[in-house]
Amino acid sequence: MFNFPEYLFLQVGLNLTQICLPRECTEDEIIEEVLKLNQDPRVHGVYLHLPPVFLTGRVLNTVMRADAVVLLGAERMDIPPTWLRPGASVIHCGSAFLTGTTILITCVSDECEVDASSSGVGALTAVLRMQNVVQSSSRWAQQQQYRPWILRSLKLQPLSPVPRDIEISRAQTPKAIDQLAQEIGLLQEETEAYGRTKAKVRLSLLDRLREQPDGKYVLVAGITPTPLGEGKSTVTIGLVQALTAHLKLNSFACLRQPSQGPTFGVKGGAAGGGYAQVIPMEEFNLHLTGDIHAISAANNLVAAAIDARMLHEATQTDKALYSRLVPSVNGVRCFSPIQVARLRRLGINETDPSALTPQEVSSFVRLDLDPAKVTWQRVVDTNDRFLRKITVGQANTEKGHMRETQFDIAVASEIMAILALTDGLGDMKTRLGRMVVGSSRSGQPVTAEDLGVSGALAVLMKDAIKPTLMQTLEGTPVFVHAGPFANIAHGNSSVLADKLALKLVGEDGFVVTEAGFGADIGMEKFFNIKCRSSGLRPNVVVLVATVRALKMHGGGPNVSAGSPLPKEYINENLSLVAGGCSTNLKKQIEIAHLFGVPVVVALNVFKTDTQAEIDLVCRIAKESGASDAVPCHHWALGGRGSLDLAQAVKRASNQPNHFQFLYNQETPIVEKIRMIAQKVYGADDIKLSVEAQAKIDYYNQQGYGNLPICMAKTHLSLSHMPELKGVPTGFTLPIRDVRASVGAGFIYPLVGTMSTMPGLPTRPCFYDIDLDPVTEEISGLF
Amino acid sequence: MFNFPEYLFLQVGLNLTQICLPRECTEDEIIEEVLKLNQDPRVHGVYLHLPPVFLTGRVLNTVMRADAVVLLGAERMDIPPTWLRPGASVIHCGSAFLTGTTILITCVSDECEVDASSSGVGALTAVLRMQNVVQSSSRWAQQQQYRPWILRSLKLQPLSPVPRDIEISRAQTPKAIDQLAQEIGLLQEETEAYGRTKAKVRLSLLDRLREQPDGKYVLVAGITPTPLGEGKSTVTIGLVQALTAHLKLNSFACLRQPSQGPTFGVKGGAAGGGYAQVIPMEEFNLHLTGDIHAISAANNLVAAAIDARMLHEATQTDKALYSRLVPSVNGVRCFSPIQVARLRRLGINETDPSALTPQEVSSFVRLDLDPAKVTWQRVVDTNDRFLRKITVGQANTEKGHMRETQFDIAVASEIMAILALTDGLGDMKTRLGRMVVGSSRSGQPVTAEDLGVSGALAVLMKDAIKPTLMQTLEGTPVFVHAGPFANIAHGNSSVLADKLALKLVGEDGFVVTEAGFGADIGMEKFFNIKCRSSGLRPNVVVLVATVRALKMHGGGPNVSAGSPLPKEYINENLSLVAGGCSTNLKKQIEIAHLFGVPVVVALNVFKTDTQAEIDLVCRIAKESGASDAVPCHHWALGGRGSLDLAQAVKRASNQPNHFQFLYNQETPIVEKIRMIAQKVYGADDIKLSVEAQAKIDYYNQQGYGNLPICMAKTHLSLSHMPELKGVPTGFTLPIRDVRASVGAGFIYPLVGTMSTMPGLPTRPCFYDIDLDPVTEEISGLF
Repeated sequence: MFNFPEYLFLQVGLNLTQICLPRECTEDEIIEEVLKLNQDPRVHGVYLHLPPVFLTGRVLNTVMRADAVVLLGAERMDIPPTWLRPGASVIHCGSAFLTGTTILITCVSDECEVDASSSGVGALTAVLRMQNVVQSSSRWAQQQQYRPWILRSLKLQPLSPVPRDIEISRAQTPKAIDQLAQEIGLLQEETEAYGRTKAKVRLSLLDRLREQPDGKYVLVAGITPTPLGEGKSTVTIGLVQALTAHLKLNSFACLRQPSQGPTFGVKGGAAGGGYAQVIPMEEFNLHLTGDIHAISAANNLVAAAIDARMLHEATQTDKALYSRLVPSVNGVRCFSPIQVARLRRLGINETDPSALTPQEVSSFVRLDLDPAKVTWQRVVDTNDRFLRKITVGQANTEKGHMRETQFDIAVASEIMAILALTDGLGDMKTRLGRMVVGSSRSGQPVTAEDLGVSGALAVLMKDAIKPTLMQTLEGTPVFVHAGPFANIAHGNSSVLADKLALKLVGEDGFVVTEAGFGADIGMEKFFNIKCRSSGLRPNVVVLVATVRALKMHGGGPNVSAGSPLPKEYINENLSLVAGGCSTNLKKQIEIAHLFGVPVVVALNVFKTDTQAEIDLVCRIAKESGASDAVPCHHWALGGRGSLDLAQAVKRASNQPNHFQFLYNQETPIVEKIRMIAQKVYGADDIKLSVEAQAKIDYYNQQGYGNLPICMAKTHLSLSHMPELKGVPTGFTLPIRDVRASVGAGFIYPLVGTMSTMPGLPTRPCFYDIDLDPVTEEISGLF
Repeated sequence: MFNFPEYLFLQVGLNLTQICLPRECTEDEIIEEVLKLNQDPRVHGVYLHLPPVFLTGRVLNTVMRADAVVLLGAERMDIPPTWLRPGASVIHCGSAFLTGTTILITCVSDECEVDASSSGVGALTAVLRMQNVVQSSSRWAQQQQYRPWILRSLKLQPLSPVPRDIEISRAQTPKAIDQLAQEIGLLQEETEAYGRTKAKVRLSLLDRLREQPDGKYVLVAGITPTPLGEGKSTVTIGLVQALTAHLKLNSFACLRQPSQGPTFGVKGGAAGGGYAQVIPMEEFNLHLTGDIHAISAANNLVAAAIDARMLHEATQTDKALYSRLVPSVNGVRCFSPIQVARLRRLGINETDPSALTPQEVSSFVRLDLDPAKVTWQRVVDTNDRFLRKITVGQANTEKGHMRETQFDIAVASEIMAILALTDGLGDMKTRLGRMVVGSSRSGQPVTAEDLGVSGALAVLMKDAIKPTLMQTLEGTPVFVHAGPFANIAHGNSSVLADKLALKLVGEDGFVVTEAGFGADIGMEKFFNIKCRSSGLRPNVVVLVATVRALKMHGGGPNVSAGSPLPKEYINENLSLVAGGCSTNLKKQIEIAHLFGVPVVVALNVFKTDTQAEIDLVCRIAKESGASDAVPCHHWALGGRGSLDLAQAVKRASNQPNHFQFLYNQETPIVEKIRMIAQKVYGADDIKLSVEAQAKIDYYNQQGYGNLPICMAKTHLSLSHMPELKGVPTGFTLPIRDVRASVGAGFIYPLVGTMSTMPGLPTRPCFYDIDLDPVTEEISGLF
């Protein structure tokens, strides 16, 4: 057979496989081989080098769903439509042209079928074809490059009054997700559909577009909010709807996946609201593509492994433990790779299980976890307040080894923070392995890798690492990925989603990502933790404000969920507005400027806001240093209501940018905390509890001193006292305790107590949630 | 505009929408409208009635991805390939031909554009076209009927020795799941891909094929197993591989989804083994399409609602509870539908919240759950033994309302049993609502609907109800759906998967489904619970036996997991084999005959089995009444190793069949239990504990007396004593307790204690499980 120059394909990263069949092969055998290769995503093409007699209709029918079909030197023939993917082209020519699972078919005459080592016409043909192949492969490589968007937006016809969120979402028919993926230049093999409206995007995209310059990177943060929230998510979604559906600029929103707990509790969904939503909102708010479920499974496997291990160590001798941990299989004992890794950490270089000394065996088999110092908690993605403090191990089978522990809501898991910060599978596996689950009786940290579970965790998380593609009400793309807590974790969506989106939007496009809580927390962590980890540099901060929150900061009465709003918030009150602008808004703008990034203030307009109030906010915001300040009407109007914001962001993104971190990683832990407290929160100083100081000493000793700081502070005030609005001064920030998420990679000082498990109210949202069994329509979500 | 006869389309179930555009509309407007409708899965077609000038390239490009394009009276034109779905055809003709999202385009002359009410040429044309439309619509309706399979099997080249399961799975490249779906006659709109190798199948299929006769229904059960298991799953998979890939008979395997707990614990995966596997086996064994995660979420929402409700009732007055449960929203108070349902159950017909008497308010707001009588448990899909008995509510926020409870493994949830037994969304919602979670202090059952949570449960389960399509190593189809416990539940895969598969295989095809545990348990429940609920009637029972288990029943020494097999099991021993055949095997055949169904014995051959042993088993099995008995070599050879079994099953399926239930539903609970104990297990009688008798009285009083019985008995013996092998006699079956799964719809008597939470061993499977971050290959699963 003709020897195909496979290496030429490999040169351009193309895996083209030749099918070698005996000359006397049957049609069935050819079909079988083609099918097998055609289904293999690792194979980019098949070189079917066959005598014309075998290019039968059946063979051609087998070669299904190609991106392009090249008939090399073949007679013109009819290509059955079943054979073509949407967008496929049929090329009759002398050169190979390859993309995706291209099938390359050549008709050869018998005299051509000579060994490449022999000379003559066959070899010459071979050489010529090699040239063609090189040319066409280069063309293929070019095709792998950035593809401009051909996005068809969905038309929005906003109603007034604005209907309920679920009704708006249901009234709009989303595009098929594979169509959206195609429109924004994703290759077919880069997406994995999950139903019709969601798709996971493979990380191989980063590799394909590694030479492509990033787009502009926009962070949406907010002023210190009221307990009702000020609409950062809707501003984010409205902004991308405006940019892409109206200004025809490529843009991507990167959002956090919400916990399912609040969907059925008090808060409702998190897919935006009004005419700025991700659709279908019920898919966004429920299981999505299972990432949080995967996190729960991984988190709880670690927890089960911890308690089972403590029990087994407490009830078995070193020898019994060792013979079970390193069992004899068919008379052979050997360490698994994860056990070898533990041996290396213990300084044991032996690989023969029979050669360990009794001391080595003991240190290998005993993690010696101190039950009182286990820091790993179980999680559940339900608002289940009765799991806030529990005692486990009370069954007889656990032989009295009971202990107090707790469940957190799933998104509080360190694994969620890791998902949000990782930049790939290898990095994620490393971070999962180094998670500290507690410490031994001698004070040494015990990690997930010590438990032998880190490989299993990576397996459980292998799909969760891929961001989920969805769309806004106007058909523009959205990534939903990761949603770590904003207090004990950093509260930002994933680095990977941002990275993928920055490549996809192209150099002139925009990626709009959202930080949790107020700018003093979410934005500070975005810069100091997320950007530090990702290496990405932001171009613009959008600071979301509402007249309601500004009035509160200007001295307005208390605002609380469930109570009617006091009249100050319903009627015009310019002095309260001015008070809020010159305090909290101004301070939050200054915080962004600390990092050297221009600020656009987005005033999320409510129907009770007066023109005078709106004008006042915009004026003071600009006086306070904002590049621009504009009112936004996305909730009532969709993208059309955010056009001014989109224009303002576009202008600000062209301003010079002098991004800098607030602190160097090498600064001592206490100093890092102090810098955040003083420069960002406006505290006079910090005060460490004895416990906090002891923990800091311990972390320094363990080599964690260089980790960035993730403050766990209330979001309802710049200070640690939620009741202090505006810009509190003259306070000392108390640091009650300090903890570490070593896998995620940050130290988190606790300023006050943080609840990691919400509860259900007397009448939870679920009372109104229902499913019509005939139409399959969901009601009651908001 | 021409008035399109929409009703004609509705007559054949076709939703064809006409776009009404003003005559002066722009090209952009047409495109926008077409796009919107084209994306709506409820619309089957668009009738684009446009002057030729509007049939521009841009308009045609908009009409993307049709299943068929019909150019009604139009000039021949080039159809861009982007416009076609795979398999799409382009038809130039005078009649409409519609399927899927067909786009129907007509070119009309201006004189035709008259109102249907006016007469003349326009009206005549209209009439003629209506006729055409009726014809073509009928044709469309026919197309909706059964589609014969065009299945391409995957070639298998078994190696010797047989590699590890994960290696075999990885070495085979599965077909793209949408290709498999197309091959077995699923319409594109009936599947929802989850990645490339799994797809959910929509229940609308049952409606489309309601007139299609069912295929043959084959149950795979086993003799009483050793603790090592006898290979029912591999027999099931080998059988469908033989039927479909080798005998070219349509067949489907319906398998249970395994819990993720054992995958990381002791047992490993459940996707079959050797050359009879579902691939990719890691997808099968891990999250799959999230059904078990959905069950956990639903189950735990109920649990959180129970504890929160008890707390709220304990700490609030009737009035406070009422004002929160029925809040004033903008000055209006009203009951939600789920609250109205509760009022009706309480006998209160009032609809005005202000009109209830204080007594009515009290009975409405107080479920008055007795904390000691809450039967609902939380679940987690992890082997977490420390959750077998726990105390919850120990945080200060729960004000001392702590109580003892437990977590079960997720698949033990009643919601899993419901998923396995339901026949549709409406039925599932009803069953979820009637689940009893405990009883009130006055002894009344409290249901999920009383908690107000049943609508939310249905929403959480809306995707889980759709079975998941996967494939065997030889590319034949498999449904994976539901996996209830085989002791406290009925241990069978879902009714819905079986129903969908029976339609898909066609009249001459086979659906092979598996029952958990031995035939005395799994098969008995399959007949008396599952078939009773589904109305389906089995044609053949395949009874799986191994020489190993037969030797055990014949008096061989103890077999236990983790210990080496005694030599009796490795060397030929005909007398032990004969002993097992004439006791346990014979009895299990007789049990199947009780139900009037023919039995084929499948001897799952191990490499240590001798020909004399194999021959002996087959001979005694036939003497004992089996229709046939054959050795199977699927583990080593795939479908080719199960050809004899496939032929035997085919023959047996043509035998006369006299299926009957063991008992009538109306028989009293005690009698039903006694009939199972005596006729199936061979007990002399049953003995009820005082508690069991009291529960039966209570269930009778509550009207649950007509539910079928789901025995929770050990699977390791026909009796309740695991150590008694063969056919135990002379024993009385003790009924320790009786419980009810009212939502699922069965009473389950407890014979001994049943563990509902497995534990992790000292060295769990996870030690060997790993992910290569570069190739993304998983290792260590088995």
